[in-house]
Amino acid sequence: MPLVWRFGVTPMAMLFKQMTVCGVGLIGGSLALIAKRERLVGRVVGLGRTQANLDVALQRGIVDDETRDPVAAARGADLVVLAVPVRTMPETLAAMKPHLPPEAVITDVGSVKGWVVGALEPLLGPRMALVGVHPVAGKETTGAGAADESLFIGRRTIITPSARSTPDALDRVERLWEATGSRVERMTPGEHDEILARASHLPQVIASALAAALDGERVGGREAAGYGAGGLRDTTRIAASSAEMWRDIVLTNRDAIIDALALFRGTLAEFERAIGAGDVARFEEIFNRGRAMREGLK
Amino acid sequence: MPLVWRFGVTPMAMLFKQMTVCGVGLIGGSLALIAKRERLVGRVVGLGRTQANLDVALQRGIVDDETRDPVAAARGADLVVLAVPVRTMPETLAAMKPHLPPEAVITDVGSVKGWVVGALEPLLGPRMALVGVHPVAGKETTGAGAADESLFIGRRTIITPSARSTPDALDRVERLWEATGSRVERMTPGEHDEILARASHLPQVIASALAAALDGERVGGREAAGYGAGGLRDTTRIAASSAEMWRDIVLTNRDAIIDALALFRGTLAEFERAIGAGDVARFEEIFNRGRAMREGLK
Repeated sequence: MPLVWRFGVTPMAMLFKQMTVCGVGLIGGSLALIAKRERLVGRVVGLGRTQANLDVALQRGIVDDETRDPVAAARGADLVVLAVPVRTMPETLAAMKPHLPPEAVITDVGSVKGWVVGALEPLLGPRMALVGVHPVAGKETTGAGAADESLFIGRRTIITPSARSTPDALDRVERLWEATGSRVERMTPGEHDEILARASHLPQVIASALAAALDGERVGGREAAGYGAGGLRDTTRIAASSAEMWRDIVLTNRDAIIDALALFRGTLAEFERAIGAGDVARFEEIFNRGRAMREGLK
Repeated sequence: MPLVWRFGVTPMAMLFKQMTVCGVGLIGGSLALIAKRERLVGRVVGLGRTQANLDVALQRGIVDDETRDPVAAARGADLVVLAVPVRTMPETLAAMKPHLPPEAVITDVGSVKGWVVGALEPLLGPRMALVGVHPVAGKETTGAGAADESLFIGRRTIITPSARSTPDALDRVERLWEATGSRVERMTPGEHDEILARASHLPQVIASALAAALDGERVGGREAAGYGAGGLRDTTRIAASSAEMWRDIVLTNRDAIIDALALFRGTLAEFERAIGAGDVARFEEIFNRGRAMREGLK
């Protein structure tokens, strides 16, 4: 009886014997579900901090085994997926490394790549390989309960080859991500960080700043934010995201984010000048540039 | 056979013999649909600029009659609803006024109230009344085709009594809006404008500036905006709104919007300093204020 493969035309061989997912949340959990469904890994081990989340992961069949001990999680893992907040990746890898197979492939799903690659490469054993990956897919929901096999379909996944990425490791990790239904492409860690600073980190910083500015803001005894309609709700939706995740992103991609903020502040200042001066032509020119950009978004 | 009334426990008497809606778009068209459904007006006349939209309004039963002639639209109208862009309200009313019944009630649905009240009051006949109204409900869709009887349910409608609002006119217009299922409240035009500058106009200016800043922005040959996920889409959604409507709002509520922008820029500058300095505690404090505000939004 032939197997039905959801993506690709030929059944894929198993890519890794054991995938250890460090952080069985939305991203790590979703990838594990897909890897198991497509039989691309022999087994999945989940490493976590809180037993409750690991219990959910086990119950949902996201992992075959779970542990809070990095040493136990390392044993037998020919693939390690770091899906923890970016700044805790080095300590997680360092704790696991002495117990990993000597040719283990290390990958991650962090939203910043330059810092991650720079911090992880020195920790690798001589025959290990590193493949930086950023699946550009998010939700406000978190935890193993939010894991979802369809999360990556049609989304982008960016792979950032670096000095310690071997061709074989790159190829296998790429095939794993292709199985998720996402659009996989490669670029340098630096290009990735500049692009994402603009397209992702900047909107987050702005949404959080707007929401914080309106927090507790009152006019004549009325809470101003209570008078917003869909516009305010949309514009601030991502302000409800995880502080822990975003703290790590902004701290590790600081320079590119500061550049992106300068770009935004420049446009905002021009827009404000046009408004203050009642310059209709200039106002409309900037407004319509924004409209064109928004209508071009898929 | 008793009529079924959707809101309120007693059938309401007819409030106006003829409602003339100037601008049969999303807001004006939706209000007309409800006024007819609830039999609060004897007939609805639509005044418009483009015949195609008026044809849709007639076809959908939003209006009983339609015209592009302000004189014809004025005749017999004991209620005039100005639902055109804010800055064209005075010329619309001025063209109609000589042909209106002497005790006509004038109302509007503009997103700015101080400027509207100040511009319209001098145009009224001696026995006419003005009731400024802002239904805080929007969509990106426009035109009579987008009119929707459920648009205002649960939303806020703000009535801004002013020198030329008679108690009787206020009462009748308020009852009309209560029939839409919205939450009606009264405040001064000035309070309205300061609140909406923060809760609505500020998010629009920020969303448009962010979208404009990313328009055509490339990194290494790649269009940065193409790498945004749901966060960028949400944050810039309202950048696709009507330039004509927003041009009028920013020009007529300029001072309050500049104040609101100063509030935002202050928080953004603090946030940026925290990011630049790697000040985790300060970053988290601002981020979590934004998170608390967002989670408090209904």
